[in-house]
Amino acid sequence: MSAAELEARLRAIGAERYHDRHPFHALLHGGRLDRGQVQAWALNRYEYQRCIPLKDAALLARIEDPQLRRVWRQRIVDHDGDGPDEGGIARWLRLTDALGLDRELVESGRALLPATRFAAQAYIRFVRERSLLEAIASSLTELFAPTIIGQRVAGMLANYDFVSKQALAYFDSRLHQAPQDANFALDYVLRHARTREQQDAVCAALRFKCDVLWSMLDALHFAYVEPRLPPPGAFLPQACSPESDA
Amino acid sequence: MSAAELEARLRAIGAERYHDRHPFHALLHGGRLDRGQVQAWALNRYEYQRCIPLKDAALLARIEDPQLRRVWRQRIVDHDGDGPDEGGIARWLRLTDALGLDRELVESGRALLPATRFAAQAYIRFVRERSLLEAIASSLTELFAPTIIGQRVAGMLANYDFVSKQALAYFDSRLHQAPQDANFALDYVLRHARTREQQDAVCAALRFKCDVLWSMLDALHFAYVEPRLPPPGAFLPQACSPESDA
Repeated sequence: MSAAELEARLRAIGAERYHDRHPFHALLHGGRLDRGQVQAWALNRYEYQRCIPLKDAALLARIEDPQLRRVWRQRIVDHDGDGPDEGGIARWLRLTDALGLDRELVESGRALLPATRFAAQAYIRFVRERSLLEAIASSLTELFAPTIIGQRVAGMLANYDFVSKQALAYFDSRLHQAPQDANFALDYVLRHARTREQQDAVCAALRFKCDVLWSMLDALHFAYVEPRLPPPGAFLPQACSPESDA
Repeated sequence: MSAAELEARLRAIGAERYHDRHPFHALLHGGRLDRGQVQAWALNRYEYQRCIPLKDAALLARIEDPQLRRVWRQRIVDHDGDGPDEGGIARWLRLTDALGLDRELVESGRALLPATRFAAQAYIRFVRERSLLEAIASSLTELFAPTIIGQRVAGMLANYDFVSKQALAYFDSRLHQAPQDANFALDYVLRHARTREQQDAVCAALRFKCDVLWSMLDALHFAYVEPRLPPPGAFLPQACSPESDA
């Protein structure tokens, strides 16, 4: 495959498998979830956010080239920030705060859906164990993030009176960080995936990562939307209003 | 053990096992090596320098606490710098340049003593696989670095006409970085090693790290000083002057 053909194939994978196509997202952005369901989403998604710098540090630990490390370490800075209230993780906690979730409950992870934890750990393990090329390719879901973030911010602000612009500050930052990161990773992958085997591995890595994101929404949908069966020990929203059952 | 007793025990390990007590160092600092032997030292030590940010990134990848990650990531910045000619690795290459070593040969690693590679990899593996407390404790050899660096810079400048102050710029930076890093790590270890088992593990980690550094000098001494038997494929200094055999 030429670089252009590989890029087209990667974009086709996103078009088919990125989690903006998951029904939970349509509910989330369309205002069809109640506050408890949005809480469950934010609480579980926090686990994914928490794991991102661990994933990027695992990747950093495998990069032999200082120049590539310099670029990649910025992702860790973006997520951890330069102080306790800065960076992507802190901004995500501002969202869970705004949704009325107890910060200790969120940070403890004890009310997580197990599937969330398994998916996030699988992502970290993938990045640790596969080739560097596959590890970098697994970040390419960010190519598709700007669209979903735009829809999410607009949809959530329009549809939920319990969500404010400040509470969604995380997404403002990601709107410019994600394309930078994604373009760098895409350029890296297109330059380094030269054999057909490497190109197939890169596509498989992107599919794997789509599976990670997708499986987290499956678990949320299963536990909190339909059939609404949260597993033992998982977060239980208080007072789900009945009109949210639509 | 109290924190003070543990600190005393750690310092006693350094006094007994840190590589400033290795005979190769006395030769190096005392001006009793020829240029080829100093080249062999710098070329092999480059492999260790190259692995330090990989080791620190492996450690970073295991730290759950963003605040601790913020502190630890500075070590990677110190070694990788903010551009191709900055940071500790680049400064080490200025030393190998000044010693007349071909940069491609140094960076390729193909003339390394295998023992150098094994020791450096063992360090990375230790940090990946042991507890976070042990991984952090393994950095405590830096407690003992300022003394050896002072001796090294003074001794090498006084004794080798092929070594300049600029060539030793790496050590100037380490003279203030190492104590900062070491004091932070010591404080962490003293606060977190509370049980006797943890305290013993911490001491074992420091001993392990002393072994890593020591074994690299053993290999250099064996290959380039006495009996001067470089293994197949290893760096061969050109024209060792016979008066260096003293």
